[in-house]
Amino acid sequence: AVTAPAAPARVRARRGMVAVRAEAGVGGINPSIRKEEAKVVDTVLAEELSKPLTPYCRCWRSGTFPLCDGSHAKHNKETGDNVGPLLVKK
Amino acid sequence: AVTAPAAPARVRARRGMVAVRAEAGVGGINPSIRKEEAKVVDTVLAEELSKPLTPYCRCWRSGTFPLCDGSHAKHNKETGDNVGPLLVKK
Ligand code: FES
Ligand code: FES
Repeated sequence: AVTAPAAPARVRARRGMVAVRAEAGVGGINPSIRKEEAKVVDTVLAEELSKPLTPYCRCWRSGTFPLCDGSHAKHNKETGDNVGPLLVKK
Repeated sequence: AVTAPAAPARVRARRGMVAVRAEAGVGGINPSIRKEEAKVVDTVLAEELSKPLTPYCRCWRSGTFPLCDGSHAKHNKETGDNVGPLLVKK
């Protein structure tokens, strides 16, 4: 089989560089939730919770924000991070 | 008064570059909280809250994590982000 020649060292080094995506400005942690709001704050009324234990998102990747939908697992796997939800117990 | 001469354009441009600090791997959002844990999860017992309204941190910069200590304001200002706490109401 014909294989492609190895890339020169300089090209390999460049390939190894990390591409940094600007999300909410460098160092921002919320890529897309309610960016029209100056500050995203949510309120939980504990007495009105329907379930005994409700997980709330702290990774800013949930499709059901402010609730946690498990998306922190993908974020942690992709980035080496260790974030998880806040569980509110009635 | 003696003032320093203006830096040449190339130096000024370099000064304007953004320094990217790797926090929890590229794209990670928790720089330092309980990094020895695979996943940081906290539980709030709503009935045991002492105040009528308690803010919980979602920016991972609080000195009193899992509580919010207002550090989100500095983070938002520095990065252009818009994150804020979850308020748990008894
Ligand atoms: S989806 Fe964000 S903490 Fe679970
Ligand atoms: S200090 Fe993190 S949300 Fe307020």
